[in-house]
Amino acid sequence: MQTKWDELQVGLDVFFQDVNLLKQAFTHASYRNEHRKAQIQDNERFEFLGDAVLELLISDYLFHTYPHMPEGELTRMRAAIVCEASLVMFARRLSFDKYIRLGRGEERSGGRQRPALLADVFEAFLGALYIDQGVERVRTFVYAHLIPHLSDAKVGVDYKTALQEWVQQRMGVPLRYVIVEERGPAHAREFVVHVQVGGEVMGIGAGKSKKEAEQQAAAAALNVLTETAGEEQKAGVSQTD
Amino acid sequence: MQTKWDELQVGLDVFFQDVNLLKQAFTHASYRNEHRKAQIQDNERFEFLGDAVLELLISDYLFHTYPHMPEGELTRMRAAIVCEASLVMFARRLSFDKYIRLGRGEERSGGRQRPALLADVFEAFLGALYIDQGVERVRTFVYAHLIPHLSDAKVGVDYKTALQEWVQQRMGVPLRYVIVEERGPAHAREFVVHVQVGGEVMGIGAGKSKKEAEQQAAAAALNVLTETAGEEQKAGVSQTD
Repeated sequence: MQTKWDELQVGLDVFFQDVNLLKQAFTHASYRNEHRKAQIQDNERFEFLGDAVLELLISDYLFHTYPHMPEGELTRMRAAIVCEASLVMFARRLSFDKYIRLGRGEERSGGRQRPALLADVFEAFLGALYIDQGVERVRTFVYAHLIPHLSDAKVGVDYKTALQEWVQQRMGVPLRYVIVEERGPAHAREFVVHVQVGGEVMGIGAGKSKKEAEQQAAAAALNVLTETAGEEQKAGVSQTD
Repeated sequence: MQTKWDELQVGLDVFFQDVNLLKQAFTHASYRNEHRKAQIQDNERFEFLGDAVLELLISDYLFHTYPHMPEGELTRMRAAIVCEASLVMFARRLSFDKYIRLGRGEERSGGRQRPALLADVFEAFLGALYIDQGVERVRTFVYAHLIPHLSDAKVGVDYKTALQEWVQQRMGVPLRYVIVEERGPAHAREFVVHVQVGGEVMGIGAGKSKKEAEQQAAAAALNVLTETAGEEQKAGVSQTD
């Protein structure tokens, strides 16, 4: 018989060696309080660990993706990704809310959809996966399920602002977004946007809204520009002392 | 000829594949500003990464060392370890101040001993080591150079408070520290302390002050108690659902 834990693991393509770790990650303190005799443990300690794992993996991702972005901007982008609103979005996208083990009182008061609770479960899951299979397995998970969605409107990574600052500080040329295509029926519209830097198309983005398409285009342009800056810097690099 | 970078690496028993990463970790922005033509990069981005690496490694260490300590106390201990004062102590202990590349103005104004600057260099070094050799190498370094010194008076980990809370909440028995030995001449005094929990000696500590010896004893007792709690919990554990 397939349990809900099998279902969850198949859905995520993540298979725990110790499935009790997975269960614990989804166990809210209110559930533990109602099952004291069974010595069930809740997810709070896992959340402590998962938070740190996520922080490192996102830091590493940003550090390598934007090889010339100043520390202040990296910190800002990291804070936008590792925040409650983003974590809730990731938790919902993966249907984590279905699997949480809640106490009855918490369930009645709508705890299953409470943002702080969902964000905690998401971090606890990452912590459990880290304990079970190590940091590289969590990295693979993060690259499969989080990184592709960082420019979604709901995640606060604002590539447009980052691109604007980059262009202002280093290039001093105008920046412009142009909608080059609108396609699909009204209820499933898709937009394609070019971003022009100094008149040259530097990134292309697509999305279900203009805003999303623009963010995608800005992210693509940032990739190109920071990469180019990297090449120039490499060519001129020399270390003294 | 042995450079200062060779000397540093021999002293730390850490050898970089790319020694430029090591140099960059020790480069303050003020030095980069004075060497603009040489395209030297400073350590700020490395610090961003090193901070996250350290946070994870300390979280992991605490999580496994205190398998039954609640999340709130873990968070408090982590904050005490990953704080400026501790990082400065670690940086000084490893003589990092000698190797920092500073601008002249910063040097004149005493920047080499400025706590924030030393703490940043320490984190940047961990970041550089992570880039060069990965998280496990940084873990080895942290276990060699940080973990053994966590109960030093200067690091804010307060094992006495942690032990007191543990004993109060779970055991409700009295807690007492007893100096069992004072040895050495006045200028190099050493104290040995027993901590009794409910009348039973549960930890022994030694140190150059009573306070340090008590902290050591409390740390030892916590290890024993949380370990015992672990065994009891394991014996009674069962997961439902």
